[in-house]
Amino acid sequence: MNISIIGGSGYAGGELLRLLLQHSEVDVLQVTSQRFAGMPISLPHPNLRGLTSLRFTKAEEIKPCDLLFVALPNGKSMETMSKWMTSSKMIIDLGADFRLRNPETWRTWYGTDHTSSDLLIRFVYGVPELFREQIKTAHYVAGPGCEAIVSILSLYAFIKHGLIKKDRIIIDAKMGSSGTGNKVSPATHHPERAGVVRSYKPVGHRHAAEIEQALSHFYPGVFVNISATAVEMVRGILVTIHTELEDENITEKEIWKIIRVEYKDEPFIRIIKQKQGLYRFPEPKILQGTNICEIGFEKELRGNRLVIMGAIDNLVKGTAGNAVQCMNLMCGFPEGTGLGFSGLHPV
Amino acid sequence: MNISIIGGSGYAGGELLRLLLQHSEVDVLQVTSQRFAGMPISLPHPNLRGLTSLRFTKAEEIKPCDLLFVALPNGKSMETMSKWMTSSKMIIDLGADFRLRNPETWRTWYGTDHTSSDLLIRFVYGVPELFREQIKTAHYVAGPGCEAIVSILSLYAFIKHGLIKKDRIIIDAKMGSSGTGNKVSPATHHPERAGVVRSYKPVGHRHAAEIEQALSHFYPGVFVNISATAVEMVRGILVTIHTELEDENITEKEIWKIIRVEYKDEPFIRIIKQKQGLYRFPEPKILQGTNICEIGFEKELRGNRLVIMGAIDNLVKGTAGNAVQCMNLMCGFPEGTGLGFSGLHPV
Amino acid sequence: MNISIIGGSGYAGGELLRLLLQHSEVDVLQVTSQRFAGMPISLPHPNLRGLTSLRFTKAEEIKPCDLLFVALPNGKSMETMSKWMTSSKMIIDLGADFRLRNPETWRTWYGTDHTSSDLLIRFVYGVPELFREQIKTAHYVAGPGCEAIVSILSLYAFIKHGLIKKDRIIIDAKMGSSGTGNKVSPATHHPERAGVVRSYKPVGHRHAAEIEQALSHFYPGVFVNISATAVEMVRGILVTIHTELEDENITEKEIWKIIRVEYKDEPFIRIIKQKQGLYRFPEPKILQGTNICEIGFEKELRGNRLVIMGAIDNLVKGTAGNAVQCMNLMCGFPEGTGLGFSGLHPV
Amino acid sequence: MNISIIGGSGYAGGELLRLLLQHSEVDVLQVTSQRFAGMPISLPHPNLRGLTSLRFTKAEEIKPCDLLFVALPNGKSMETMSKWMTSSKMIIDLGADFRLRNPETWRTWYGTDHTSSDLLIRFVYGVPELFREQIKTAHYVAGPGCEAIVSILSLYAFIKHGLIKKDRIIIDAKMGSSGTGNKVSPATHHPERAGVVRSYKPVGHRHAAEIEQALSHFYPGVFVNISATAVEMVRGILVTIHTELEDENITEKEIWKIIRVEYKDEPFIRIIKQKQGLYRFPEPKILQGTNICEIGFEKELRGNRLVIMGAIDNLVKGTAGNAVQCMNLMCGFPEGTGLGFSGLHPV
Repeated sequence: MNISIIGGSGYAGGELLRLLLQHSEVDVLQVTSQRFAGMPISLPHPNLRGLTSLRFTKAEEIKPCDLLFVALPNGKSMETMSKWMTSSKMIIDLGADFRLRNPETWRTWYGTDHTSSDLLIRFVYGVPELFREQIKTAHYVAGPGCEAIVSILSLYAFIKHGLIKKDRIIIDAKMGSSGTGNKVSPATHHPERAGVVRSYKPVGHRHAAEIEQALSHFYPGVFVNISATAVEMVRGILVTIHTELEDENITEKEIWKIIRVEYKDEPFIRIIKQKQGLYRFPEPKILQGTNICEIGFEKELRGNRLVIMGAIDNLVKGTAGNAVQCMNLMCGFPEGTGLGFSGLHPV
Repeated sequence: MNISIIGGSGYAGGELLRLLLQHSEVDVLQVTSQRFAGMPISLPHPNLRGLTSLRFTKAEEIKPCDLLFVALPNGKSMETMSKWMTSSKMIIDLGADFRLRNPETWRTWYGTDHTSSDLLIRFVYGVPELFREQIKTAHYVAGPGCEAIVSILSLYAFIKHGLIKKDRIIIDAKMGSSGTGNKVSPATHHPERAGVVRSYKPVGHRHAAEIEQALSHFYPGVFVNISATAVEMVRGILVTIHTELEDENITEKEIWKIIRVEYKDEPFIRIIKQKQGLYRFPEPKILQGTNICEIGFEKELRGNRLVIMGAIDNLVKGTAGNAVQCMNLMCGFPEGTGLGFSGLHPV
Repeated sequence: MNISIIGGSGYAGGELLRLLLQHSEVDVLQVTSQRFAGMPISLPHPNLRGLTSLRFTKAEEIKPCDLLFVALPNGKSMETMSKWMTSSKMIIDLGADFRLRNPETWRTWYGTDHTSSDLLIRFVYGVPELFREQIKTAHYVAGPGCEAIVSILSLYAFIKHGLIKKDRIIIDAKMGSSGTGNKVSPATHHPERAGVVRSYKPVGHRHAAEIEQALSHFYPGVFVNISATAVEMVRGILVTIHTELEDENITEKEIWKIIRVEYKDEPFIRIIKQKQGLYRFPEPKILQGTNICEIGFEKELRGNRLVIMGAIDNLVKGTAGNAVQCMNLMCGFPEGTGLGFSGLHPV
Repeated sequence: MNISIIGGSGYAGGELLRLLLQHSEVDVLQVTSQRFAGMPISLPHPNLRGLTSLRFTKAEEIKPCDLLFVALPNGKSMETMSKWMTSSKMIIDLGADFRLRNPETWRTWYGTDHTSSDLLIRFVYGVPELFREQIKTAHYVAGPGCEAIVSILSLYAFIKHGLIKKDRIIIDAKMGSSGTGNKVSPATHHPERAGVVRSYKPVGHRHAAEIEQALSHFYPGVFVNISATAVEMVRGILVTIHTELEDENITEKEIWKIIRVEYKDEPFIRIIKQKQGLYRFPEPKILQGTNICEIGFEKELRGNRLVIMGAIDNLVKGTAGNAVQCMNLMCGFPEGTGLGFSGLHPV
């Protein structure tokens, strides 16, 4: 099967290439980049040296293919999507443009009108753990935001089973620097970014919209707040989710039984609740390069508070790996194909 | 004036020495360490090379002095405090043992009986911004925990003026590695600790007790929850405090006016709420070595949420610098003596 | 084929397990650890959660197997090797004990008598690029030191072709923290180790002995000096090798042609000499998890100096990955089996 | 005394301001920045908040002052120097333009003609330890490059006393990211720069020219080669200097006696050669913010090799602090005024 990538010089594109070049069921046909057209794809992606002799092409030279990944900046995707639809019957979009189903919600959070609002409902929101059956038959999938997917995966079992109050959810996200992409800026200049604990989005985070949309499937009226802090890390997100239990008297063991059943068949979810060892809770550090989402929780000693923790690699389960998982479902491949990397320790 | 330090080989002791050796009003008489007795104080504190020829002495060789700093592990201080009281009329204890006034509260949070419970009420809790007048006349001061002081300073103006709900406070703390002291452990082994985002205390954090005790001075019934996460950083704490406004309709400007008045005469508090630049919120990175506490806040776009942020260097305003500030008050020195370091940028 | 690991709780053991559990041709039979006996192997190796239900066994419970990896501390291996030889016909030792062929050289560099000196000559030094044919028929292989292998691989083509002066070689090695293993110490305590540029072995580095032994195969009389500096990194080594050209007038292009021919069929050597991009020279950062050794060089503008650079992941090509490559050769598997991970970028 | 700064928005300018705003003998009159004109100086220098209400002015608004610091990009300084000379009788230039005395040497290393070559001999090279008397009476001082000054200070006692071969010197420099200034670039984008061990200048480093010029004062014909590697660190340089002893039989103790005498009266040089502790050699990590240069050495066990190590904070002793030290000498202030910060540990 032939796949191509629109916008393959960024970090998401590079990660897609890493996974797809070693994927047993697909061939990478074309990768576009306006800036790097004509150059080897290993120039911005040095880890791919020796794996391929492909060079970037211009977007206008794109040929028909079986599945197309679109990895364009927010806003660019909606402008060009109808064109890509003529090149491929299956499309997975990695940007924000097709995640929300309601154009009004788009306007509220992104401050602009959606220029392809008619296409919104044709996209399935690409969280396999929630929408596996829809993805299997989908033509168009919108990959979730990285903070969104880790929050959704961490929360959905708790929401679905009515364990926590659906409108009292605070997501405190700790973020690596790769999440902002490969465009340089003063904020990501190494002397300024190294070692920070920077409150870069304490309020008003847009991913709240897609989290609420996805979780309200299970329980209408979910309401979340996000505060995001950049920490010293390239890859990875940890979300510390502050929630309130519906039933203050439920025990950790009872909670564990419920969520264990919910997550137990998921190939990429790992419940982490250890009594010993150094990695007793979800930890993004050891998930680098993997498609795994680790989830844990602790009940506060006083009151009704439940702290839920979730960790992913923002470029894998947060972006490219999850997109490949969606592709596997759409194409009928075994769901974990090409996603078996276990991660490194120590690292 | 002569000061001595009991337990001066740890990080708090080293930081005290850094500040006191260059303090214009005091001389360091003795510094004890059982492990390093007889060795130069610059052996565990290499930044002090050339500043002094002092060597560590054993605790049993301690001589009378004008003011004594006690920097012993939790539990050791209470066992020996009555002895130190015979050596000095003024004592500043940097450990946890004398922070709580109620021995019952001690038992609840620390799980042991307090062996010097009669001494508890003789200690003033050493937050100058809250208890300046008491500290000025105190003989005994208990320095606060590092997470406690940054949380207290960040919250007190909001609590005092009734801006936020006193029992709906969640402190999400991001911590550097120096807070655990210089004792080695698998958890702080560099390959394991580097680059983590480790949920080391998601619930049950003991500093809640002293935060509640201190803030309840202004408003009885304060209730806080803490989740602490270790991040890649040696010095520093950022607290992201999730609170709820009493009045959802208050504006950020109105809030700013209130807290500005409250903090404006404080020499070591800096309100950070910038519209431009890279450091628009409190940032521990640039506070390393300083006694400054930066405080900021943001109102969520929806609902009644207010996010308050506070940053300090855990070893300075979080421990040794704050203790020197207390000493200055106790001894009648200008409050900022020896604490003028501005911090570095970039760093 | 069944393999077992003696001493599998350390970093080298963990990395071996990561590679072997996903290796298509072998099954992991037993993994020993005195300290963790009875516990799941994922306790010290959290990245292996879900990959296996194996538990550590005691060394005395070791069963016969087809190939045995020995990953014991220096000195322990020589004491016990004759015992392991009764359990398996093929052994790959990852420690230092069987790398040197001459017991006198051992004494000179390690300061002790070798207690199994009769076994020394039965071990082949495990650098596939130099001793491939011997490894293919070997029963016993001694894996090289991590600084040694990257230095040997970086130098051998230059030595073999007489490009550089064999006795004027200075290896300036920059090292990650994982090279010292998982035993805690004050030097690896995070607050002390983070951010250092620590000259931990400016002179007298023992790996000089094995580098000289290996390279003297090609050209007797090789003499090297090593200065090793610890930098902020968990995995990885960069060696900057300061050498002198035999012929000052040779051009970079001429050099390139010679070494390209030498290395071109090597599956895990990558010559890096780029004119553009951010990764124009060997870079350990992007080699994490891979078995690749990157090699580059630059000719000084004045005089006869040639700077050769080499980079590896010390735990993969520097230890476990290289051992698996040796196993593949010994067992007749395709040489790259299980070693295809491309590395991550950014990371 | 009034001082002004031309080009004060960069890292060198910020560090000058940090030191000068707390300097007891000078007042900062004006600080220019084309980009930030009209804005508070704390905008790019957040550590200076609260220390001053100064705002940046345009260079054309510069007023006469007693001493002028010029911190402009290479090439800009030579174009404008004659103009600055009309504003101030004393000038300290922090860039490269006036370091070399011979315009031919400039052309060789910088590839352009020097447009103010007549001014070159009017500048004294600003290394107080070598040229203290000249600086005291100088009107114009050129601050050395950061790699240059640490190399010069580390080498001069050894060169002066004929301990090492003057033409067999290899400087292997490990560099922090702040040395490249605050201009963003793909190479300093955090995801690309974090954790690298990047050979950014393995050959052809321009600072060789000024090192050779300075050291040839003591011994004509000094010849040095530099290889520079960027490591994970914001502030700091370590140079590992590979040299050869003139007399192979000299002992470390004999060397120590000689260099101790040479350096003993230097206020900012610290010989580090410890038998115990974690900081047994020069370490940039603990020098952050200080004007100290640490120097150490080790004799190789075999042959005539001597490894000399030197460490500084590139922005202090490497730039701004050293410039303030020069100012103190030029103005007759005590040499250490404003430079007493001891550095932090741990950090």
